[in-house]
Amino acid sequence: MADHTPELLGKGRIEALSDGVFAIVVTLLVLELRVPALPEPVSNAVMATALRPVVPKVLSLVISFLTVCVIWLSHHRLFTLLAKVDVPFFWLNANLLLWVTLIPFPTALIGDHPGSAVALSVYGVAMSLMGWAFVLIRVNVRRSRCLHDDVDAVAFGKGTLQVVLLSPVAYSLGAVLAWVWPPLAFLVFVGIPVYFVFPHAVRARAVASG
Amino acid sequence: MADHTPELLGKGRIEALSDGVFAIVVTLLVLELRVPALPEPVSNAVMATALRPVVPKVLSLVISFLTVCVIWLSHHRLFTLLAKVDVPFFWLNANLLLWVTLIPFPTALIGDHPGSAVALSVYGVAMSLMGWAFVLIRVNVRRSRCLHDDVDAVAFGKGTLQVVLLSPVAYSLGAVLAWVWPPLAFLVFVGIPVYFVFPHAVRARAVASG
Amino acid sequence: MADHTPELLGKGRIEALSDGVFAIVVTLLVLELRVPALPEPVSNAVMATALRPVVPKVLSLVISFLTVCVIWLSHHRLFTLLAKVDVPFFWLNANLLLWVTLIPFPTALIGDHPGSAVALSVYGVAMSLMGWAFVLIRVNVRRSRCLHDDVDAVAFGKGTLQVVLLSPVAYSLGAVLAWVWPPLAFLVFVGIPVYFVFPHAVRARAVASG
Amino acid sequence: MADHTPELLGKGRIEALSDGVFAIVVTLLVLELRVPALPEPVSNAVMATALRPVVPKVLSLVISFLTVCVIWLSHHRLFTLLAKVDVPFFWLNANLLLWVTLIPFPTALIGDHPGSAVALSVYGVAMSLMGWAFVLIRVNVRRSRCLHDDVDAVAFGKGTLQVVLLSPVAYSLGAVLAWVWPPLAFLVFVGIPVYFVFPHAVRARAVASG
Repeated sequence: MADHTPELLGKGRIEALSDGVFAIVVTLLVLELRVPALPEPVSNAVMATALRPVVPKVLSLVISFLTVCVIWLSHHRLFTLLAKVDVPFFWLNANLLLWVTLIPFPTALIGDHPGSAVALSVYGVAMSLMGWAFVLIRVNVRRSRCLHDDVDAVAFGKGTLQVVLLSPVAYSLGAVLAWVWPPLAFLVFVGIPVYFVFPHAVRARAVASG
Repeated sequence: MADHTPELLGKGRIEALSDGVFAIVVTLLVLELRVPALPEPVSNAVMATALRPVVPKVLSLVISFLTVCVIWLSHHRLFTLLAKVDVPFFWLNANLLLWVTLIPFPTALIGDHPGSAVALSVYGVAMSLMGWAFVLIRVNVRRSRCLHDDVDAVAFGKGTLQVVLLSPVAYSLGAVLAWVWPPLAFLVFVGIPVYFVFPHAVRARAVASG
Repeated sequence: MADHTPELLGKGRIEALSDGVFAIVVTLLVLELRVPALPEPVSNAVMATALRPVVPKVLSLVISFLTVCVIWLSHHRLFTLLAKVDVPFFWLNANLLLWVTLIPFPTALIGDHPGSAVALSVYGVAMSLMGWAFVLIRVNVRRSRCLHDDVDAVAFGKGTLQVVLLSPVAYSLGAVLAWVWPPLAFLVFVGIPVYFVFPHAVRARAVASG
Repeated sequence: MADHTPELLGKGRIEALSDGVFAIVVTLLVLELRVPALPEPVSNAVMATALRPVVPKVLSLVISFLTVCVIWLSHHRLFTLLAKVDVPFFWLNANLLLWVTLIPFPTALIGDHPGSAVALSVYGVAMSLMGWAFVLIRVNVRRSRCLHDDVDAVAFGKGTLQVVLLSPVAYSLGAVLAWVWPPLAFLVFVGIPVYFVFPHAVRARAVASG
């Protein structure tokens, strides 16, 4: 290992670790959906009423699921642009994964308390920090020359700027709007992943970042 | 990335993410089996009585386990037919994974309340939506020409029709039958994976979809 | 796929799914260790007393952890002997994985109630069924000619017999002994994985099964 | 398999199993963050107060997350030095994974009771045993000649000594200091991963172990 200056790491294994974390996080979200404790036998009316509070939880779960998918897709795209990874990359990626693993908590928080400005702000701030983590990775791989030679540096820089605006800035905005009117924050939190999922957005972004 | 029109994604990494989700979902099902809280020391009679409500939970767990295995197998088969995957495929696959991750919730619901028509309907509808997600993927890969050249389009179309009948239609039927007589719904929900597991069914289906 | 008679599956992807399940099961075992709910601040004496019931849980966790490792090792060895895998193999492997995913439940049961004959029997029977699942796989791969050509069929048959004796038979014995004197069952359940872990046993078994 | 003396195992599959365990453990840490049970609607002041006890839990989660990342990185580096793996390696690696899977429990313990000397000692001892597990692996791969031929044995030995000092010895020290003044133990437990994360430390260590 002594001849590596700086030391390089296995890109494939970091990808595998990250994929494991992404897969587990999206699957753990379901643990927030708890079956209501009802005595048996239960009437259909009682069961239907008991399931009503599950609806906002499912909604917040779907939002977080889509959000993690968007991150996974961005992560996947970034990896295809990397020629190598080094130790600082590992730690910046670990920082991203830390915020990704935390997602089930703010998700459960807004699922249980969809009208609480504090809960929505916690969600917005946590997601914003995750966004910054992703931006840090992009800035670092460009500086440390980990990108493939044929990657257009200007377009990559524009892509990074776009990530800044669409992720940390937008989530911080959501956290602020929660104090104005909670549903506005929800709208922003739904809007961000939906924007990425919509085909034309995806295409536009592929051009900008690629 | 700029020369990809439309952008292509890594088939292997989407497969790995999907496999991770499948593996976690089948393993999380066990979390619904909770050890009864009993004071120590406990007599054998009390322990046996306390374990009785675990039986329907194990049954619903086994049904869901088999069902996820059937989806995994169909997913695996579909992947062997794919020449490439694109961004729309990623999102349609993510839609399938969303419904797969939700499975532990309706499973726990019918495990706790095996006689409730509402619970059984929730299970049937969730599974039906998962079935539709799979159908959407099949329709899309054919349209977007992601299939290998040597795949017989007519046979593939027949296979899709068979999936429509055996999965979303059959699960919707179960959801309806739950309101007639709950055990009928259970029978349908057990019958669907069992039909796929049985060797002759497997063989017949391999011919039809292959 | 139509020219496959019988249809073959991807050995690598079944291995990945199985590894995912093994990794998740050993990690989920820790969820049974719950932090005692104590008011803050807590004295050292109270904390030490509250942690005492965690000890048998850790013991049962270690037993199950070792047991899953033994299965993983056997599973890994079996896969190195396989030239191909088919659909029946997939379902027999799924049957093994089903019993593997269930392990956290009987483990928690004997961790909470280490002196209960019913709890210990549930553990023994569940593990015994897992052992039978493994035996079924071994018998089937030999019959369906999935083994590499250079595998010695007689030695492989002897290895299968050894698995029968050391796993389903030994676990059934433990389940019976639980009714004579519970600690005896514990001794059997610890003894089985320990026998496999001990170096000389491993070497002897490698010769017999190989 | 009969011609393998001693039997060799698939390095890739052990790596995959270990990565799975690492990924799941860091993700399970979030399950300790529980949404406070509050009646709806909840005022911002009540929500803010209810979230206060979550702060030390997040801190202990981040410490454990970083610690697992350090182990993963060390594990990854060690694997790049290995030419082959054998059955004793598998069991020593399983021993390491056992301690890794246990991490969520002592983490939750110090998250709930950050001032308890008993809790902090349990954390220190568990982490210390994990450190010894890693040392055992390093000693064994050197003895059993599993290392690549071009690995400098003297430098590798120095790296092992460094691991002994920085991991089991330092964690034992933390466990002892908990009885002097609890915050001191926290400082040690934070200091260990932070030392590894800091760039100059990483570089110094890469030279020493490589």
